[in-house]
Amino acid sequence: MKALVLERKLQLSIRDIDICERLGVDDVRINITHVGICGSDLHYYLEGALGFRVVKEPIVLGHEASGIISEVGENVKNLKVGDRVCMEPQVPNLNSKASRLGMYNLDPSVRFWGAPPVHGCLRESVVHPAMFTFKLPPNVSQTEGAMVEPFAIGLFAATIAKIKPGDVTMVFGAGTIGLVTALAAKIGGCSKVIITDVLGDRLKFASQFGFIPVNTSTEKLSDVVRNITDGWGADIIFEASGSESAISGIFETICPGGKVVLIGVPRQSVPINIYLGMAKGVHIETVFRYAHMFPKAIALIESGAVDLKPLLTRVFPFERAVEAFEYAAQAKINSVKTMIELQKS
Amino acid sequence: MKALVLERKLQLSIRDIDICERLGVDDVRINITHVGICGSDLHYYLEGALGFRVVKEPIVLGHEASGIISEVGENVKNLKVGDRVCMEPQVPNLNSKASRLGMYNLDPSVRFWGAPPVHGCLRESVVHPAMFTFKLPPNVSQTEGAMVEPFAIGLFAATIAKIKPGDVTMVFGAGTIGLVTALAAKIGGCSKVIITDVLGDRLKFASQFGFIPVNTSTEKLSDVVRNITDGWGADIIFEASGSESAISGIFETICPGGKVVLIGVPRQSVPINIYLGMAKGVHIETVFRYAHMFPKAIALIESGAVDLKPLLTRVFPFERAVEAFEYAAQAKINSVKTMIELQKS
Amino acid sequence: MKALVLERKLQLSIRDIDICERLGVDDVRINITHVGICGSDLHYYLEGALGFRVVKEPIVLGHEASGIISEVGENVKNLKVGDRVCMEPQVPNLNSKASRLGMYNLDPSVRFWGAPPVHGCLRESVVHPAMFTFKLPPNVSQTEGAMVEPFAIGLFAATIAKIKPGDVTMVFGAGTIGLVTALAAKIGGCSKVIITDVLGDRLKFASQFGFIPVNTSTEKLSDVVRNITDGWGADIIFEASGSESAISGIFETICPGGKVVLIGVPRQSVPINIYLGMAKGVHIETVFRYAHMFPKAIALIESGAVDLKPLLTRVFPFERAVEAFEYAAQAKINSVKTMIELQKS
Amino acid sequence: MKALVLERKLQLSIRDIDICERLGVDDVRINITHVGICGSDLHYYLEGALGFRVVKEPIVLGHEASGIISEVGENVKNLKVGDRVCMEPQVPNLNSKASRLGMYNLDPSVRFWGAPPVHGCLRESVVHPAMFTFKLPPNVSQTEGAMVEPFAIGLFAATIAKIKPGDVTMVFGAGTIGLVTALAAKIGGCSKVIITDVLGDRLKFASQFGFIPVNTSTEKLSDVVRNITDGWGADIIFEASGSESAISGIFETICPGGKVVLIGVPRQSVPINIYLGMAKGVHIETVFRYAHMFPKAIALIESGAVDLKPLLTRVFPFERAVEAFEYAAQAKINSVKTMIELQKS
Repeated sequence: MKALVLERKLQLSIRDIDICERLGVDDVRINITHVGICGSDLHYYLEGALGFRVVKEPIVLGHEASGIISEVGENVKNLKVGDRVCMEPQVPNLNSKASRLGMYNLDPSVRFWGAPPVHGCLRESVVHPAMFTFKLPPNVSQTEGAMVEPFAIGLFAATIAKIKPGDVTMVFGAGTIGLVTALAAKIGGCSKVIITDVLGDRLKFASQFGFIPVNTSTEKLSDVVRNITDGWGADIIFEASGSESAISGIFETICPGGKVVLIGVPRQSVPINIYLGMAKGVHIETVFRYAHMFPKAIALIESGAVDLKPLLTRVFPFERAVEAFEYAAQAKINSVKTMIELQKS
Repeated sequence: MKALVLERKLQLSIRDIDICERLGVDDVRINITHVGICGSDLHYYLEGALGFRVVKEPIVLGHEASGIISEVGENVKNLKVGDRVCMEPQVPNLNSKASRLGMYNLDPSVRFWGAPPVHGCLRESVVHPAMFTFKLPPNVSQTEGAMVEPFAIGLFAATIAKIKPGDVTMVFGAGTIGLVTALAAKIGGCSKVIITDVLGDRLKFASQFGFIPVNTSTEKLSDVVRNITDGWGADIIFEASGSESAISGIFETICPGGKVVLIGVPRQSVPINIYLGMAKGVHIETVFRYAHMFPKAIALIESGAVDLKPLLTRVFPFERAVEAFEYAAQAKINSVKTMIELQKS
Repeated sequence: MKALVLERKLQLSIRDIDICERLGVDDVRINITHVGICGSDLHYYLEGALGFRVVKEPIVLGHEASGIISEVGENVKNLKVGDRVCMEPQVPNLNSKASRLGMYNLDPSVRFWGAPPVHGCLRESVVHPAMFTFKLPPNVSQTEGAMVEPFAIGLFAATIAKIKPGDVTMVFGAGTIGLVTALAAKIGGCSKVIITDVLGDRLKFASQFGFIPVNTSTEKLSDVVRNITDGWGADIIFEASGSESAISGIFETICPGGKVVLIGVPRQSVPINIYLGMAKGVHIETVFRYAHMFPKAIALIESGAVDLKPLLTRVFPFERAVEAFEYAAQAKINSVKTMIELQKS
Repeated sequence: MKALVLERKLQLSIRDIDICERLGVDDVRINITHVGICGSDLHYYLEGALGFRVVKEPIVLGHEASGIISEVGENVKNLKVGDRVCMEPQVPNLNSKASRLGMYNLDPSVRFWGAPPVHGCLRESVVHPAMFTFKLPPNVSQTEGAMVEPFAIGLFAATIAKIKPGDVTMVFGAGTIGLVTALAAKIGGCSKVIITDVLGDRLKFASQFGFIPVNTSTEKLSDVVRNITDGWGADIIFEASGSESAISGIFETICPGGKVVLIGVPRQSVPINIYLGMAKGVHIETVFRYAHMFPKAIALIESGAVDLKPLLTRVFPFERAVEAFEYAAQAKINSVKTMIELQKS
């Protein structure tokens, strides 16, 4: 089948690839319609690696996908040919201890699309377990479907944070993950969502959603938070920047008994003044992908609680997929989500 | 000062009453502008009692109030004369074990406005602790301020329920408490809010907020829930009807591991089939008033996350306060919140 | 193979039965050594039914078992022939929604040994998934292994209760489930465990574990609890009696913000005064079997944190299995656990 | 009155000091019998400072105390002259936001004995709020009473950790705080408590309580944990060493979804590899002193669930108090708790 193949660092080609996938009794086959480009895809493209994962063989990237069912396994009841769907890109071993405990995202043996050596979904079709394939409601489009995956990260962060309605929250970083987290925090009941960044354009974009923008290169964050919270501090801080300085200063603006949720991945170890967090009795949670989020994410989009459409910057047809990667790589600052359309839906 | 006094069951009079309140160092004096009429006020008016509390002496009713600060105690820093405010009507002993544990609403010695023998706030002015008096933001009106109290009940229920964003919830009962709970559940991140009642008018009113109405006198609730949730059941059920049949059947429509939140007060003991709940491993929470909710309620109204204005049915001037009670008592079915204006704000 | 078969109500026979079990790749075959008799087994024996489950065909009872591995499937790594083991008697569908959420005990399709029409383990051997088969440490005997199952219920109740070290707890009912729950509550950190019953012999037996016995037919429980807790109430109450009067009065002795854990199954609906619970803001949890408990139960027995041996009243050889049932049925009051030895270990 | 006064760094003297304390209506006056020496006392003695707190004026140290009531305020009901008691050394403002939320230990205005400029209790008598003064049961001695304070820290850590019965835990550091935490973790239901240190003598001492000692200077901790937990990792790690290397490596040995509880205060910022924690979805809690722990700590000592007596290394009479400090300062490695007896009890 046709696929977008990363041959090696910096070299993408659209070509035929031989991926033989047998349809199991609990599986469906899906014709892919849309795939969004994620920051991790760009890391593999530009650097040939992400953390300890290295591109050693040609690999198909992509894991933010929507499509249309073309074939169903014999045990599959809840999906049928022609259904419009989006897919959770991780497949855990349901028999692992982590999965049995309900934390399948933490199963060390999970297979994730586009994380070498597992092929991603930037190709004509995939075979996938029905239980990780989710029907899109009539009012949710294929492009929205392909944004369920990044939104699921923000939604999982908001879920883990156990927001109490009326909490004041702060999101560090106004990139894609910061934005979906801020949207999820608002859905989760936060009365005020402060969002920080050092790039004015990103903050301007974020403001349209009603978030309170703070440019930390020109404003003193602790003063802003003190004013907004009458000196108490933010109830919850979501760290979605991965920035060392943001993380190092995170306890300054949190309230006593507050919660810090770590989402952004810093490039190296970050020095942390533990005593500052201790003196406030902070709780710290960490986010690794998501679990159980797709049905909830879809329901929230369907209900109108969140509108992801403004996050879609540009859609490229499949034959211009390489250009799409170059666009996403260069335009990172001003764009949010670049998408590739593999076939008309 | 002038007050609306319940002399005895069914006899209200506007008259002078002698309430001498000394302003402590941590107190404020507030000129009352608006007071909403609550179901409990009507119980005292119509029946002379509510549960074990009986009207034995003339009493001033009312506990849903907003006003304007007229005097501040010497230690009070965060409020000043002229501030528009609303008040939490309960004053606990901060030194009690329950208060120290953060559950001041459960302190048995709490004093609550308008619960015999404690006078309520349907009078010219009150003295109140500054810490239970909350400034209203510019975009929150005095009538909205007087609705913070009932909204706080719904908000506390939603807080206790620990809603996960995207949960499907159901609220039993579309009266005032059912409505504020449904609004709070939506704020808290529920993707779908089903609301039930046996009165079509109430359900019609509730529909304007985007809730899914189910008339349990004509529709089979379990079928509706099965359809909406693909057979799984509701994640959370808020019981705000106090109806014996609603409570008895509550485990039928909850999901495995789901949460039941009890808010409505049934008139007598309710037979419960415990095994049904057990087989689903349900969690049950109970709501008694609220704690820590006023600042969050106000912040959510200020932010636009919730609009309480549609709940206000009619405002009567103070001189027609008795008429207001009669209106509220008779019109219960079609009205939501009747309010009395004690002075122009 | 030889089995103890309940032909119909009141008629048990030891005879050959044809149960053909194929060993799957993730399964083990176990020669059964010991099986404890549970209250539910007695219900099927004496009444031919338990709740909605009715004995329609001859059935092998028993689900509290230990044994020795005789054969292992090809994927099984952590167990080998000759290993001494005990078995969790429920087998869920790991692909169900409840299982994926980590609540496999609430999966409606779970298969449970000895719950009609599923055969139990009072037979020579069983085939069972390796993941629900647990190796016994050297210092845990086969009879202790067969008591892991009932202990798991108490341990799950204690886990669900989220005991805070130093809590004062109360267990209603000093039968087998009450005892294992009280033991688990003590392990979980309770400083005082009050246990109630109406039978003096049971309370005397319970006293040996350091529990505070209260005979509710001769003592006023609320007075006892008031004295022990300085008027505050019990932090947690475990209801393990199934008694209507115990359940109806449960809110009288709980503390504000306390937790009620329902384990005992009453025979019918129980009238509950919801307002009493509400005024204390109680939390109510329900226990349905257990999940994830066997490894922890075994580790606690191994570590010496709990000693289950005093609970074993009498062991019958397999050829006297019918007599064992009669003994257990009649001696219910004075005995705790009657066990059948199927083969020497 | 007579007191042990730290005149300045390294200079302690027993002399008269003029501390005038008026007995409020909710207060009691206590004749001090015993005071334990804490690591923080030694910091002030040896270095004249602890973190940002500096000894600028002569100060009375000491906060781990027991005594006998000599006078009671007029509102005090639950205590009387002659009662043997121990005292919680922190007095918060009950009207602060943190206190109202039940987290009085996080109230920034809390006054803590012996933290400059607040005088401690190494003196003849103190006046203290009755609500922070706790009666000792007959079987709890005055020296045990003076150890309730350090034990409360471990107990709070174990409470915050939300131990599930049967969890495997690890405590980093076998000093006083490590030991009380390990004891509390065992009380809280841990089946195995691994304790680490680099000092063999400490580990030998710790072994008497049934903890599993690991000398991290000679053993590879990750191998030990892998063996004990079948490769899964520890469910909970309590960090009580304050050691940079211990903290930096903490995510290596924790299980997926595990909990890290930070108690030890490192001298400076610690570089942390956040991604390692994230990939395991860890939860991190921080411990700052304690709240609500004294009654529970006393109840657990009374019940025999914990025996603190082995922790008491040596008691010095008051006239040799300076020698006691020197002993504690030098003998740190081999001793646990050094205590000063101010008067016979």
